[in-house]
Amino acid sequence: MNERSVTAGVDIGGTNTVTGIVDQHGTCLLKSSFLTTEQRTAKEFVLRLAATIRELCQNLPPETKLRGIGIAAPAANFHKGIIQNSANLQWKTVDIVEMMKEHFNVPIAVTNDANAAALGEMRFGSTRGMKNFIVITLGTGLGSGIVVDGRLLFGESGVAGELGHVTIDPNGRTCGCKRRGCVEAYVSATGIRRTVFELLARYTDDTELRHISYHQLTAHKIHELAVRGDPIAIEAFEITGKHLGLLLSNVVAAFDPQAIVLCGGLVKAGDMLLAPTRKSLDKNMLDLNGRKVMILQSQLNDGEAAILGASCLITEAEAKEPGAPAKTERPSR
Amino acid sequence: MNERSVTAGVDIGGTNTVTGIVDQHGTCLLKSSFLTTEQRTAKEFVLRLAATIRELCQNLPPETKLRGIGIAAPAANFHKGIIQNSANLQWKTVDIVEMMKEHFNVPIAVTNDANAAALGEMRFGSTRGMKNFIVITLGTGLGSGIVVDGRLLFGESGVAGELGHVTIDPNGRTCGCKRRGCVEAYVSATGIRRTVFELLARYTDDTELRHISYHQLTAHKIHELAVRGDPIAIEAFEITGKHLGLLLSNVVAAFDPQAIVLCGGLVKAGDMLLAPTRKSLDKNMLDLNGRKVMILQSQLNDGEAAILGASCLITEAEAKEPGAPAKTERPSR
Repeated sequence: MNERSVTAGVDIGGTNTVTGIVDQHGTCLLKSSFLTTEQRTAKEFVLRLAATIRELCQNLPPETKLRGIGIAAPAANFHKGIIQNSANLQWKTVDIVEMMKEHFNVPIAVTNDANAAALGEMRFGSTRGMKNFIVITLGTGLGSGIVVDGRLLFGESGVAGELGHVTIDPNGRTCGCKRRGCVEAYVSATGIRRTVFELLARYTDDTELRHISYHQLTAHKIHELAVRGDPIAIEAFEITGKHLGLLLSNVVAAFDPQAIVLCGGLVKAGDMLLAPTRKSLDKNMLDLNGRKVMILQSQLNDGEAAILGASCLITEAEAKEPGAPAKTERPSR
Repeated sequence: MNERSVTAGVDIGGTNTVTGIVDQHGTCLLKSSFLTTEQRTAKEFVLRLAATIRELCQNLPPETKLRGIGIAAPAANFHKGIIQNSANLQWKTVDIVEMMKEHFNVPIAVTNDANAAALGEMRFGSTRGMKNFIVITLGTGLGSGIVVDGRLLFGESGVAGELGHVTIDPNGRTCGCKRRGCVEAYVSATGIRRTVFELLARYTDDTELRHISYHQLTAHKIHELAVRGDPIAIEAFEITGKHLGLLLSNVVAAFDPQAIVLCGGLVKAGDMLLAPTRKSLDKNMLDLNGRKVMILQSQLNDGEAAILGASCLITEAEAKEPGAPAKTERPSR
C-alpha cells in the first residue's frame, strides 16, 4: 500500500451511518456520521454517502489517493455486492456496490457488519496473526464473523456465519426472522431484556426493574442494576451467559477455533456476562486432549471495528481471494 | 499423476480395517480386510497393515509405483498425524504416520473417517466440483467432514467438524464423550435404538420390538419393521429425522453450504429417514432469499468412500495445502 493512499470504511447501521478514512496502519484519520433514517430511499442514501466521502477526502493532504471503499451493512452479501432485505434498514434489496460505482472509480466492496468486525480484529485487533477464530457481536442481535484458515467464511451464497439464527429451542421465543428459538432471541441486548421480563413474571422479588417498561429497559440499565445487586438482573446475566456458553461450545465442536472474540454493547457488562459464559463453555465443551479456546473481548475503539474491517475489504478484494489476507500484509505467526 | 502409480487408502474401523489400492480415476483396483481387534497393540496393528499393503502391491502390474498411503481412522488428527484416544479403538494415542513411515518411504497422511468421506465425495462422488458442502456420516456415531471454499475444514488443532457433539439438549441423553445431549446420542444407529426404547416405555402399542433386546436391536431391523408399518419404528424415524433436520438447519445457518451429503448405515433407510429430515429442515431453515440446500445421498460404493477419500489425502498433502484440491485435478464447475 502506498504511503499516500487511504481507504474509506463505511458502517451502515439502522440508526447511524459512520464513514471513516483509514490509513494502512488501521488509523482512522477522519470520521463523519449521518442519520441513516434521514434518507428515505436507497438512492438518496447513496447520494448522501458519496457526498460524505468526497467531503472527507477534501480534508486530506493533497495528492492522497482514495484506493477504495469498503462497506459494512446488516444483511450484506459480499459475493453479490448487495444489501438483502435487511430487517434493520427501511429499504428492500439494494445493489449498493453498483450504485456507489456510479460515483467513484475505485474498488468497492460490501460485507455484513460482523464479517467486517472479524476483518478488523484480524488486521488490527486482538486476533492479529490468528488463522482460526470467530467474532461474535452482541448488539440488538447476535452477529458473527468466522475466519477459517486465515480467510473469512462466506459460504456458497455469501451468507454464512448466521450464528444468531442457530436454534436453541424449536418451541422457544419468536425471532425477528419469523422462526422460533434462535439464539439471538436469548443472547443479545434484546434477548436479555426478554429474559428479564420472563424472570419478572416467574419471581416475586421486588426490584427497580418492575418500574421500567419493556421499551425503556436497556442492557446498560440491566447491567447497572446487576452491579448494585439486583437479583433479577444478576440472574438475567447468568442465564444469558449460560446460553452463550452453550452456543460457544457448539461453535468450538464445529470450527475448532483458537479464539472467540466477543464485542458489541452487551459485552460492556464484562465479567457479569463473561464469568457465566466461561463457566458454561467449560462445562459443555467437548474435551479433546485438554484443548483451550481463548475468550477475548475486542480491544478496538468503540464503534471502529466495523469501519476498520470494512476498509480492509478492499485489500481483500485486491488479493483476489475473498477473505484472504493480502500477501504483502499477511501477519507472521 | 503417473498412469502407472497408485495410492493405498486405508479405513481403520472399530471392527475391520479395509485397505484398498486406488488408481487416479478413483477406481479401487484391489481390496483386503482384516479384523482390527485381532491386533492387541498398535505396534502389532501397524505390522499387519504394512504386510497387507505390501501383499496387495505384489499383485499389481510390474513397475506400478505406490505414491503414498492415506489413512482414515476415528479421532485422527491430520495436523499431528496421530490417532487420539479413540473411543472405538482399544489403543491410546497412536503416532500412526510416524510408525508407518518405518515401513514405507512414501508420503503418509491420516485424517478422521468423515473427513476422508468428504474428500472421496469431492473427488469422485456426488459433490464433485462443489466448493462448499458437508458430509454427515450416520453410523454408530455421527461424524462430519466440512468443505469450505474447496478445502477441508481442519480447525486450529485439527479436530474441527465434530458436529456429532453439538449439544441439542444440555439435560438430555448421556453420550460416549461423557457429556449430555449430543446430537449423536439421538441421530445415529445407536441414537435411533435409544429412541425406540424411549418410545417402548412411553407407549403401550404391541410391536415386535418388545421381543428384541437392546443389544440385539439394529437400525436395519428398525427400518425393516417401519417398512412393515410398525408404529413405534415409524415414529422413531420421524423423531430422528426431526432432530437431524434441526441440526442441518443450524449447519446451514453457520456454513451456508451448497449441499449436505448423508452417508452411513442409517441412511440406507432412505426416505423413511430423509422425508422427515427434509420436512424439519424446511421448517427450521433460515430463509435468506429462498435459498435451497441440496440434501444428497452418497453415490459411492458401500464402504469405499473413506478408502477413496483416504487415498486422496496424499494428493492433498502434495498440494501442500491441506484440504485443497491438487491443482492438476481441480474439478471444473
